[in-house]
Amino acid sequence: MRLIGLDPGLRLTGWGVIEVEGNRLRHVAHGVVKVAPAGTLAERLRELFEGVAGVIEAQRPIEAAVEETFVNVNPGSTLKLGQARGVVMLAPARAGLEVFEYSANLVKKSVVGAGHADKNQIAMMVSRLLPGVVAKADAADALAVAICHAHHRATARRIEAAL
Amino acid sequence: MRLIGLDPGLRLTGWGVIEVEGNRLRHVAHGVVKVAPAGTLAERLRELFEGVAGVIEAQRPIEAAVEETFVNVNPGSTLKLGQARGVVMLAPARAGLEVFEYSANLVKKSVVGAGHADKNQIAMMVSRLLPGVVAKADAADALAVAICHAHHRATARRIEAAL
Repeated sequence: MRLIGLDPGLRLTGWGVIEVEGNRLRHVAHGVVKVAPAGTLAERLRELFEGVAGVIEAQRPIEAAVEETFVNVNPGSTLKLGQARGVVMLAPARAGLEVFEYSANLVKKSVVGAGHADKNQIAMMVSRLLPGVVAKADAADALAVAICHAHHRATARRIEAAL
Repeated sequence: MRLIGLDPGLRLTGWGVIEVEGNRLRHVAHGVVKVAPAGTLAERLRELFEGVAGVIEAQRPIEAAVEETFVNVNPGSTLKLGQARGVVMLAPARAGLEVFEYSANLVKKSVVGAGHADKNQIAMMVSRLLPGVVAKADAADALAVAICHAHHRATARRIEAAL
């Protein structure tokens, strides 16, 4: 059971792939899709989409998870993040994967045990849950979302089935 | 010279295709890509992308234009609109079209002659500039963006070349 977690951003999108066997988690790979700030918005969105689609094609996860975005106070930043997020979620959807969303609080609780945790705490706990893995902020967040999905996917499915 | 204008929204995305010959504009087609509010966000974004990609494949425009989105005061709505907008801009970009952005004010000025105009005024002026065309709000806005691009594409290219 291979899962991908995604942490969207227009310049940097973190991704992390894990495998779940019963209660065991195994790290597979992680990284960042970088898009240079040159070029038109449409070009950057295309690069972002193709980067994420390429990771999915190479890693072959069967489900994807994305954090529900922190809504920024600045509307311009929120719009930018939304544009990136739409394109990042589209990549697994077009590859036929189901895409799950989790609140930032639930992701933090799943990994750190508390709803309020900073990026360093998340990266540290990710490297405990996936021994030996050292990931920088964006990729660590993406691995955290994947871990959260591993913990909640059974429940998420049951909720969905009941709707 | 066939151009498509796009007015993005998660539920309704207006599109309008025109042809430009010198100073003449000719209406080709217009419509709306509708996405039912059922399903996960990822499924809706996929439907939206495939709807817009389908229009582009059928209409074969050579350039696309999108209005720079009005930034809503509600961050939740802004994020939603951003997600839809990212996916809508991606469709022409992936089809190899250049995608141009125009401010809402410039679109209104190009069509109505004033930076402040309501949707009815825009629809009315669109039906004067493209005689006989009756389009509802979303498609009329999309045709207005296409008309704006027809007026400014030479300039937009010169600005781009100078950058």
